[in-house]
Amino acid sequence: MKHGPINFCSRCGSDRLQHLVPEGDHRIRVVCTKCQTIHYENPRIIAGCLPVWEDKVLLCRRAIEPRRGFWNIPAGFLENGETIEAGAAREVWEEAAASVKIERVLAIFTLVDFHHVYVHFTGELVDGAFGVGEESLETRLFSEEEIPWDDIAFISSKFALEAFFEDRRLGLTRTHVGSF
Amino acid sequence: MKHGPINFCSRCGSDRLQHLVPEGDHRIRVVCTKCQTIHYENPRIIAGCLPVWEDKVLLCRRAIEPRRGFWNIPAGFLENGETIEAGAAREVWEEAAASVKIERVLAIFTLVDFHHVYVHFTGELVDGAFGVGEESLETRLFSEEEIPWDDIAFISSKFALEAFFEDRRLGLTRTHVGSF
Repeated sequence: MKHGPINFCSRCGSDRLQHLVPEGDHRIRVVCTKCQTIHYENPRIIAGCLPVWEDKVLLCRRAIEPRRGFWNIPAGFLENGETIEAGAAREVWEEAAASVKIERVLAIFTLVDFHHVYVHFTGELVDGAFGVGEESLETRLFSEEEIPWDDIAFISSKFALEAFFEDRRLGLTRTHVGSF
Repeated sequence: MKHGPINFCSRCGSDRLQHLVPEGDHRIRVVCTKCQTIHYENPRIIAGCLPVWEDKVLLCRRAIEPRRGFWNIPAGFLENGETIEAGAAREVWEEAAASVKIERVLAIFTLVDFHHVYVHFTGELVDGAFGVGEESLETRLFSEEEIPWDDIAFISSKFALEAFFEDRRLGLTRTHVGSF
């Protein structure tokens, strides 16, 4: 179980929680009426990096749910205590046993209903080397023509891949912004 | 009180919490040994936008702690249910009573020890109009020469401002990545 509902105050243990707008705020929050703790809930960051080698990009086929068996850009939840670019490089290591030299911010994509914000970098695959991390079934370099568009795991990854190939065609290095 | 320690499970109310590495994970988490809920803690996103009008940028002098009295780019915690660009525009409205047309991602800056990731956009100030939001003491348009560099509230804002003026001198529109 990852995200339970908030039934009890994590600070004082009371079940005297109410949904109300705290003083000086504009939004309804979960507030403990015993110890006054406000339990904010905010979107989480998913940091990823599209590894590039020559004219190809590296994708991972997911070994875990959701979307097990579908192809994805290496990415995962940013952890406390790391920079976003370090988190992106870490995910490449965990999913594809590969080192990348982070290059630029390719895309920022908000999945509004899931409270997720994807930040996808591009990075050069060091020495072109990669393996298969424990969260992946397989990993593979794809040219643009080989991308399995119908089997991409998430809309955020499809957005970033389309942005990457469009930029390459146009000779641009922009940061694309999207949402769903 | 904003962020209390986790003393009780917010799902089942138990105080039987342990710091341990869950199966399949690599990091120590707060885990409830009664109901097995894993209480993840992740960095939060601060979305902001530097409003631009002709050759000037709009800054706000903070009416609230931390750094009350110092100048800042309008920014604040991203909320569930909004895109990151909408959150940035909302903050401009709340702090400077101004509408912006979001243009591009200027900078992403991780404050590692605070578990904050700033995402600063640039945006055109609609009709050059602005006021003073309730979280600001005053708001003002500054040319580059007028920027009060010693009185900028946060290092993330200083980074974004320097990036903006550097890009303008060089005629570039990059996304800058930094951390502290």
